[in-house]
Parts: sequence; C-alpha cells; structure tokens
Amino acid sequence: MSQVVQLNNTRKDFIFYIRQLHKLCEKDLSLINSLIIDKLDSDVPLVQEIASHLILSGGKRLRPLLTSCCFQMCKDNNNERKHIGLAAAVEFIHAATLLHDDVIDKSKNRRGSLSANEVWGNNTSVLVGDFLFSRAFQLMAKYGNISVLKILSDTSVVISEGEILEIQNDKDLTINEDIYFKVINGKTASLFGASCQVGAMCTKINQEKINALKSFGTNFGMSFQLIDDAIDYSSSTTMLGKNVGDDFREGKVTLPIILAYLRSNDYEKEFWKKTIRHLDQNKDDLSKAIEIVNKYKCIEDTIERAKHFANVAKDSLGIFNESEYKEILTNLVNTGLTRLN
Amino acid sequence: MSQVVQLNNTRKDFIFYIRQLHKLCEKDLSLINSLIIDKLDSDVPLVQEIASHLILSGGKRLRPLLTSCCFQMCKDNNNERKHIGLAAAVEFIHAATLLHDDVIDKSKNRRGSLSANEVWGNNTSVLVGDFLFSRAFQLMAKYGNISVLKILSDTSVVISEGEILEIQNDKDLTINEDIYFKVINGKTASLFGASCQVGAMCTKINQEKINALKSFGTNFGMSFQLIDDAIDYSSSTTMLGKNVGDDFREGKVTLPIILAYLRSNDYEKEFWKKTIRHLDQNKDDLSKAIEIVNKYKCIEDTIERAKHFANVAKDSLGIFNESEYKEILTNLVNTGLTRLN
Repeated sequence: MSQVVQLNNTRKDFIFYIRQLHKLCEKDLSLINSLIIDKLDSDVPLVQEIASHLILSGGKRLRPLLTSCCFQMCKDNNNERKHIGLAAAVEFIHAATLLHDDVIDKSKNRRGSLSANEVWGNNTSVLVGDFLFSRAFQLMAKYGNISVLKILSDTSVVISEGEILEIQNDKDLTINEDIYFKVINGKTASLFGASCQVGAMCTKINQEKINALKSFGTNFGMSFQLIDDAIDYSSSTTMLGKNVGDDFREGKVTLPIILAYLRSNDYEKEFWKKTIRHLDQNKDDLSKAIEIVNKYKCIEDTIERAKHFANVAKDSLGIFNESEYKEILTNLVNTGLTRLN
Repeated sequence: MSQVVQLNNTRKDFIFYIRQLHKLCEKDLSLINSLIIDKLDSDVPLVQEIASHLILSGGKRLRPLLTSCCFQMCKDNNNERKHIGLAAAVEFIHAATLLHDDVIDKSKNRRGSLSANEVWGNNTSVLVGDFLFSRAFQLMAKYGNISVLKILSDTSVVISEGEILEIQNDKDLTINEDIYFKVINGKTASLFGASCQVGAMCTKINQEKINALKSFGTNFGMSFQLIDDAIDYSSSTTMLGKNVGDDFREGKVTLPIILAYLRSNDYEKEFWKKTIRHLDQNKDDLSKAIEIVNKYKCIEDTIERAKHFANVAKDSLGIFNESEYKEILTNLVNTGLTRLN
C-alpha cells in the first residue's frame, strides 16, 4: 500500500485525489479539453460564447476523467483512442443538463460566476443546452458505436425522467427514500455510471468488467450526491463552491430533510411545512433547520446511506487487479465521503 | 397524368394531398403511431401525460410521412423496415423542439389546445422536451446506424443553432435575407430534409438518390416555412390552426417584414420600429401592417421566394421514375405554395 492510501479519510483529500486523477490522466485530459474547445465552435457566435462560459469555467471534469481512467484501467496495447471523443460527449451532456437545471432552479450562480441564465436569459440557456446535447450525439456518431449510443441515450432518458420526478415532487416533505434515490440516480449516478461504462467499452475488456465499472460509477454517483446533499446542512459556510443552505432556501427535499421530517415532533413538522413547503423563511430558519437535522442525527444517517453505496462501488472493483487506476478510484470514493468534514 | 394532378393549385389542396399521403402510407403510419405511443411510456407518469398531450393531439405527422414516403419510393423487396423507428424518432425531435419553442415564445396555444407550458409550466416543458429528445436518440440506437445518427445529430445541431440565431436577432428589422434563410433552415427545412434522407437510407438506393431526397425535403421545408410566414399577414383570420397576426404580435421578423421594412418610407419605418422593435402595438396596428405589406407586394415576393425553393425541390425528384409517391410529393410542394389563397 502506498502513502496515498494512508492519507485516506482526512479533510480535503477528495480535492487531492481529483488532482491526482488529473495528473494520472493528464495526456487524455489535454486531448479531451482540446476536443471540447474545438466542438464549442459554431457559426452562431452567441452559442460559442455561452457554451464556453459554462464549459471552460473550471469544472472538475470528473465525468470525462472517469471515462479516461476506466479506459486506461482496461486497455491493452491495441485499442483505438475513441474514449477521448466519448469523454467530451459525456461532459457536453453534463453541461447541457446544468444549463437546463439552472433555468429550472432559477440559479444565479454556477461555479463561482453568474449562471448563463442570469447573464443571457432563460431562452438562450434552454437553446444552448439543446445545442450541447446535440453536439454530444454528434460526437457519439463520430467516435462511438451503436452500443455506446444506446448507453448514453438511455442515460439521457433517465436524467430527464429523474429531473421531472424531482420537480413533480417539489417541496413534498413526504416523499420516500425510494423516490429520492431515483431522483439522485437521474441527477448524478446514471451519468457517472455511463461515463465509466463507455470508457471501458472502448477497450476489448469482457462484459463482466464493463458491468463492474458501470456499477462502480453508478454507486459512486449515488454516494457523491448524498454527501452533496448532506453538505448543504453542514456547519461550514462554503464547501467546494456550494453554499450551505442553497437547497434549504430553494425548498429542495433531500435526504437530510426527508429523515428530519419523519423524525420531527408536531411543532417541528410545522416548521418544515412553513419553510420548505410554503418557502416562508426568515434569516434564522437555516440555523433552526440545521439544529433539527443535527438533533435527529440526519446527517450521520445520510452519510451512512452514502457509505452503503460507496461500499458497493468499491466492491465492484474487486474483479480488477491492483493498479494505480484502481487505487485512485477507491480513494476518490473514500474521500468523497469525508468532503463535509 | 391522373386526376390528382389536375386539382393542382386550387385552394385547400394541400390538406387534400396530406390526406392522400396519409392513405398512401396508411400501414406505416399505423405502425409509427403505435411505436410513438409505446415510446411515450415512462415510469414517471407526468412525462407520459405531457408528451402524450403534445404528440397525440393531432399533428399532421408530416415529417414521419416524408420518411415513410421516401422509404417506399426507394425500397426494393429486401429492405428491413427500420424506417418506422426512424420516423418515430423524427417526430420525437420535432415534438421536443415544439415544447422548447413554446417556452421560448411564451405560446399559450398549440394545435388548437393550450400549450404544455401553459398547462404544466415552463420547467416541465423544458424537461419533457429533453426526455423526447433523448427518446429520439434511443430510437436511433435501436433502429438506425451510425450514418443515420450522424444525419440526425447534425440536424439537431442545425436546429438549435437556428433557434439561437433567431432569438439573437429578435426584433431586429435590419436582418438580411441570408440570416432569415439560415433561421428557417434550422426551424423547418433541416428536419424536413433529414426526414426524407433517413427514409431513403433504410433502403439500398444509391447515394445520388439519397442526396436528391435530402435536397427535396430541405427545399420543400424552406418553401413551406416561407408560406407559413406569409400566411401570418394574409387576410383570412385562421388557416391550418395558425392565427393571422401571431408573428406580428410577437414581433417576429419574418421575410414579409424584412421586405416591407426595406421598402418603407420614413413614416412607415417608424411604424415598424414602434410595433416590432418596441412591441408597442394597438388594436389597429395589425391591419396597418398588412396594408403596408400589401402596398409593397411583400407577400407576392415572399411567395416568389417560396416558388424558387419549391422548384428546386421538384427538380431534385427528376432522377426518380414516375410513381404515385413521386406524384404526391410533387403535389404537396405545389399545393403547399397555395395554402394562403
């Protein structure tokens, strides 16, 4: 075991391992970024301006990195390098969903800058999202095959269904965990899974291992989103660009709230109805919400759920030999869990 | 020449030929409609409800009919019938763009009913549009091949770029015809072209004929949209579900207005600036607009432009032998021109 593993489970390690992953996939990442810039080109200058604003604003490139890492973990010496195009396609799908999400959530900020909808308006954001989504499928046509197309179009269906399910259950304090899991599967896990899967599919690896990497990505994504949702009720003020209280202020019903509402007494239930269902909030309500969430150990239990998915993710890597790729994927999952410390 | 051709160029013939096309492709249309209904299915009931509201509300199915007609025109006895799936995909792409268009244009009505955004809100319309778009690519993965995927993803890029170009030049009275043609190519012609092309690609016909049908569809689409834009300033109150004056009330700069503005005197130019650029309109302004449009023969000249594209469309069919399919496509183009009589 290397030095790397011993660093596990301490603060800020997630960012450390993201950087390690950047280094490990440096050559691929540079090609992916060049291809992304190339494919942002459009005869319509506004398209390029908006798409660049989002895509070149310094996202972590986590999804294309997963594609690259899984490709490299599975490759032998005779593979074409089509995964570069698919990694760009995955990032374009992600960017398209962010543009549409920000319109739907009326978000004013994204990655530390003004959101595209805030700068250029909702209409343009919807259409540039459509453009990026179409570009993703153009990339698949060029670099992929029908199997890859099937995976990524299935994933896109799951993403849009998940988002619709989310707004359909908007501010509903009584949704159950199953619906919530389906929502976060659509929002995050399905594209994490597909990113890993298509990377492996560009190699000659067997179906069992492709399935294992799909499972890895999906479960890592579930765990990742659960921690994201927990961060929103953690006590630090900012964490990885996300502001504590964003979900609360929007009245989003995430797992900490689902658990807190279930465990609340009648008086507290009224508080949740007022602040979440009716979005009637004053400046002390976020602290009060965090207090109730902590009282009933809802963050701990959200982390427990995240650990469950993290364990499934790590175990799915069991069929692979040890390698620096496997090690970094494992470390990402482990440290992803401690992002809110 | 049959009876059919002699009916040419009289009123309401376009609808007559659409019905003839429905009859000629009856078996395909029934399969396409079944597949559409099947693929509207979703675990998320709201998706199905909204998608059905739009797709089952009695559109003409012109695009899938073009796919079916072109397939049948080119087929021999040994073709698989994958064009059914692609025809459904084309209709799904069309429906997705309608949902997003209605959000962007803030439309209240679509096909004689309330628009989806009016009933369920903008957010749901954006996401169900994304769902339909993803479903279209799922259908392509199942029924198509990489060549077809390339055509339809290229088309989707052109559609979104065209729409962005349109809103970017919103209310700009000085845009030139080239930009306008690019906008209507995106809005209508590109998907008409692709609908024809992918139908032919499901047969073993040669590339020259595939190109010819792509050209047919594209130019038919240009002609079709030009007449649509002319209808908006025709004197009848309603025509094919479209209300006269819709474009004017939204301040859309279509060819009749581009020509009218170019030809207007200073006094009339001020009228256009007030009503279109600043959207400051009173109840007599539509009549006044129609008066200026007629004074400068802008409808006649819009029809002349439409005839040009119609002629290119018809000539592109020259390399095909006579058949009932060819005859009906020709008649559709001819009668499409007289829809505003």
